[in-house]
This record gives sequence, structure tokens and C-alpha cells, in this order.
Amino acid sequence: MTKAQKAPATFDVVGIGNAIVDVIAQADDAFIVANKLNKNLMTLIDAERADELYARMGPGREISGGSCANTMAGIAALGGRAAYIGKVNDDQLGMVFRHDIRATGVRFDTPPDREGTPTARCLILVTPDALRTMNTYLGACVNLGPDDVDETTVAGASVTYLEGYLWDRPRAKEAFLRAARIAHQAKRRVSLTLSDPFCVDRHRESFLTLVRDHIDILFANEAELISLYKAPDFDAALQAVRDHCEIAVLTRGPKGSVIVRSDELHVIDAAPVAKVVDTTGAGDLYAAGFLYAFTQGDDLRRCGKIASLAAAEVIAHYGARPETDLKALVREKLG
Amino acid sequence: MTKAQKAPATFDVVGIGNAIVDVIAQADDAFIVANKLNKNLMTLIDAERADELYARMGPGREISGGSCANTMAGIAALGGRAAYIGKVNDDQLGMVFRHDIRATGVRFDTPPDREGTPTARCLILVTPDALRTMNTYLGACVNLGPDDVDETTVAGASVTYLEGYLWDRPRAKEAFLRAARIAHQAKRRVSLTLSDPFCVDRHRESFLTLVRDHIDILFANEAELISLYKAPDFDAALQAVRDHCEIAVLTRGPKGSVIVRSDELHVIDAAPVAKVVDTTGAGDLYAAGFLYAFTQGDDLRRCGKIASLAAAEVIAHYGARPETDLKALVREKLG
Repeated sequence: MTKAQKAPATFDVVGIGNAIVDVIAQADDAFIVANKLNKNLMTLIDAERADELYARMGPGREISGGSCANTMAGIAALGGRAAYIGKVNDDQLGMVFRHDIRATGVRFDTPPDREGTPTARCLILVTPDALRTMNTYLGACVNLGPDDVDETTVAGASVTYLEGYLWDRPRAKEAFLRAARIAHQAKRRVSLTLSDPFCVDRHRESFLTLVRDHIDILFANEAELISLYKAPDFDAALQAVRDHCEIAVLTRGPKGSVIVRSDELHVIDAAPVAKVVDTTGAGDLYAAGFLYAFTQGDDLRRCGKIASLAAAEVIAHYGARPETDLKALVREKLG
Repeated sequence: MTKAQKAPATFDVVGIGNAIVDVIAQADDAFIVANKLNKNLMTLIDAERADELYARMGPGREISGGSCANTMAGIAALGGRAAYIGKVNDDQLGMVFRHDIRATGVRFDTPPDREGTPTARCLILVTPDALRTMNTYLGACVNLGPDDVDETTVAGASVTYLEGYLWDRPRAKEAFLRAARIAHQAKRRVSLTLSDPFCVDRHRESFLTLVRDHIDILFANEAELISLYKAPDFDAALQAVRDHCEIAVLTRGPKGSVIVRSDELHVIDAAPVAKVVDTTGAGDLYAAGFLYAFTQGDDLRRCGKIASLAAAEVIAHYGARPETDLKALVREKLG
């Protein structure tokens, strides 16, 4: 596909994901063990378990989150044009979510549910090692369906970005596939993040088909990639993904990241962080930096460097959305 | 009053105040000016103005607040026995408030409103100089009345602590006076914080009468004290307050604090802070440290030192409730 075939993009990236407000509290490892939580992973919980766990948690701070929404907020903070599709309820937390994402400059017009289940929340326990243990009550997110995918927005975005977490609910999955179809018909790119090794494990076979048939740019961390291919190690998984999609963007925490496009391979160092406080959102902001730079036409190496900078900013504080001027940060560090 | 006359206390301190969830966002001075906000002060706003200002604010983080509630949370974090009386609605933010204060170990049993106005929120803009500009929509707080003052709790607390902000609403004022009466009948102490120079200005005459007739321990910062006595400077105000109540605890920001009890006067340095991030809650946590130490029987000098440490902790991060182990901090710094 060449530029001549496409209308100019209205958005750099449109994201579709679970619209979630994070409830972040500190906890020690004893709390994680006593409550049988899956440390450093995302676990789906029902309303009853959410109430029970919340009652046991320490005081929290509520900050808008949701993996894909964090990525869109990051793209906007970098100066990109981002839109978001996700479902909240018309309740207080839903209004908080809507305010926050719009305040970052992201276009967000998905109508909220007027009744039914409340806005989703993710109970996040941050341990002293800065790892985050996430427990998500999906609430209103389960009502996201194909009708929420605005055709004009998706057709007008250079990249449509989807989170693997959507695969957990049949209607969100339909929304996902409809978006991918619209994007490709408009000769745009479709991108996916695998989200979480648990999520990959739940959907391995259909993710493999999805990546092969629909995904142009795949984001995955080491654990997710190894899980997807049931590979013995990172390098084996890397070789498998090479032939599977146009671009694979693979993050490895403090070990940095690897970006591969057929024969082209870049190894990018992690950007330094004075003190890692809370790793929530590291992958989300990495994806933001990459997609922002990519849609500006930057080469893959610079995409990776901007991605690493954005990830480093978000892990230096609580919450998964940027708190400093990312545009200025990129200018200062990379020119 | 001597110890022999009193039943043993069930609580060290019970606080009565406006139950508020803070919505904290960064802003620059241009935003403060453009929106005609009263920098570094607390302004009461109505629902419409709250919506309007919220729509203009950047992305926020929601953290339970409320001046007096912050103080009670601080006392509990120091190891004291604290209870709180305040009114929330039975909505999501109300449940957040309830969860957070209980999770800190504070007893909180005031029944929430089941209908009517939503839980109060304070839109806080933190400028790069770390000062906070507060805009409070009182919501459900206006429904706090004398019936919410639980007699057993107040009679059983060594100190009843009241925030001046209550004086803004007639029914809360009645609750306030009822609590003071119960406390004194039980031979306990009554304490007041003046809250804010604007608040003092709104209620100067009645505050002067109140302090003289009902208050044993008065908390005020420099601006509030000067406003109360319309004094030319801090020292003149200090001389005026000396004869006015048993103990006056006067905070002066980075200049430290002064504690006066008739002829006894202590000048306490502010505890050092590596980087001041957000001064919200500095006075609240100072009061927490003081009241905790005071109810443990510490001398006034040590009360002031523990107070300064607690204040220093809270201004090193966003939000007005402690985030580190205050008990351990006191042990480490003061033994």
C-alpha cells in the first residue's frame, strides 16, 4: 500500500480497549500471598471478589488507566493525534475516566452505558519492588460491542491499536475484528498488544491466527511472546515472530527492547530511571512512544528510543499515565 | 480537670470535618490566573462552577482528603486511636472516602446520605512551586448535622478536633457546638484549626468568641492568626492568642512553628524535605503529629517535633494523607 492510495489520516492512532479506573495501593508481599493474588500479572475478578479485596486493601489513589487508554494518553502527550474507543458507565468513575482521557487531548466519544454495571476498576497492589499486581473487575467494559466502533474514526487513523485484553469478552472481540476489517479496507495498519501472559495463555490459538491474518505491528513483552509460541526462550520466540507479522516490537523490562521487521533488527537499551516506583503502564507507554514516532515517519531505531523514554517516565511515579511533558523530554534527550 | 475525674479514653482524638475526595491536577500559574482562582487558598464553589472548572483541568488523581480527615488518618498512621465524623453520599466517591479512611485504621461510622447531593470534592491545582489552590464543592457535607455527632465517641475521646471549615454551614456549626459541649461535659479537651485565612475572614467575630469560650487547643497558620486578630504581624498576633486559649499551635511553613502555653513558648524548626511536591495537607499532618504526641503525654517540644516530621512527609508527594510509615519515621528520626 502506498500513500497515494490513502486519504490523509485524521488521527495518528485510534485505540480500542477496556476503559478502566485504577485504584492503586501499596502492599507488601505478605498481602499478595495471603490474598492469593497473581503477582505482577493481571487477573480478572468478579464484583464480589472486587468488593472483598478492596475492603482489605490499604488506602488508594484513583487514577484513570486501562492499557490501551494509557497508550493513547501517551501518544497525545507526545504531540500525536489519538482517539479512543472504550466503554464506561455514566457513573462517577466513568466521568473521571472520560474527563482524564479528554484532558490529555485524546478524542473519546464512545457513549457511556446509562444503566447496568458500573465503570470498570483495576485494584492494583504495588509492592516495594515496584511490581504491580492487577485485579480487574471489567464492569461496563463487557458492554463494548461492534456498534461502538466508529467507522470514520477507524478508517481515518494511520494505525488502529487493539489490546489483547479485549479478547476476553465475545462482544469486545467482535468490535476488535470489525475495527481490523475497517482499518485494512482503508489501507491502514492494525496493531495489537498481547497485554499479559495470562491473557495469551487464555487465547493462544486464536491469537496465533489473529496475528498471522490481521496484525501488522505486534507488541509483546518477553513472557507474552514466549507464551504465545510456547518457545523455550526469548530468542526462539523472536525467530518465530519474524515471519508472522510485518513488525514485532518486543519489550524486556530493564533489559531493553528488540524491534524486528523481516531482516531488520534493532536492540534498544532501556532508558535510565533514577528510582522505579511503580511499573504499571511501562508497556503501555512504550507502545505510545513507538506508535507516535512510527506515525511521524521515524525510523524503527528512533521509534524504540522514544518508546523507551516514555516508558521510563511512567515507571518513576504511581499511575500509568505520563505526568511530565513527554514532548519536552524527547526534545531534551533525543533532539 | 484531673485524670481522676475522667473515664479512660476510648479514642485519643475524634475529628469532625468536611468529608472530601480531592481531585488533584497539575497546573501552571497562567491557568490559575485565567480561571480567576485564589492561589494557595480554599474557595467554596457550587456544582456548576465545579463542572466548569473540572472540564478545564488536566487529568487528575483522586485521593481521599478533607482537612480534618487527613489529620485523623495521620494520627492513626502514627499509632494513635482516631475516629472521624463526616458526611458522604452513598455514591462511588463516598465509598472511596469511606474505604480509605477506614483502611488507615480510623473509626468512621457516620451514615452516608442515600440521596441528594453527591460526595464533596475539592478540585486542587498544584502549581510548579508546590502550592495548592483548592476549590471545594461541598456536596453531601452540607447535610452533616448535630444528630451525626455520636455522643459516646465524643465523650470517650481525649481530644475533639474540629475544622474551621465547618463554620461555613449552619447545620455543621450546630454539630460542632454540640460536640464541644459533649466533650467539655466529659472533661475532655476541644481543639480547633482555623483552616484558611479566607475562612477566618468569613467568620472572624464568631471565631474569636468560639476560641475564647470553647477552644483549649488552637491550630492556626501565620496568615490565619494574623487575620483572626487583624494584627500587624505574626508577633503581635502571637501575643494576642496567648491569653485566648490554653495552647496555641502556630505553623509558619518553611519557617517552622511556634507553640505557646501561657508563659511557655517553643520555637520548632521545620523538618527538612528533599523536594517539596505538593503542600496540600501540610497543616493537617502537622496537627496530626501534635495531637498524637499530646495525647500520648509528650511534652510540647516533642509534640512540635513529631508534628514537623509528619508535615514534612506529606509535602514530599501528591495527596494529603501519609504514604510512608509515620511510626517508623518518628522512631528513626526522634527515637
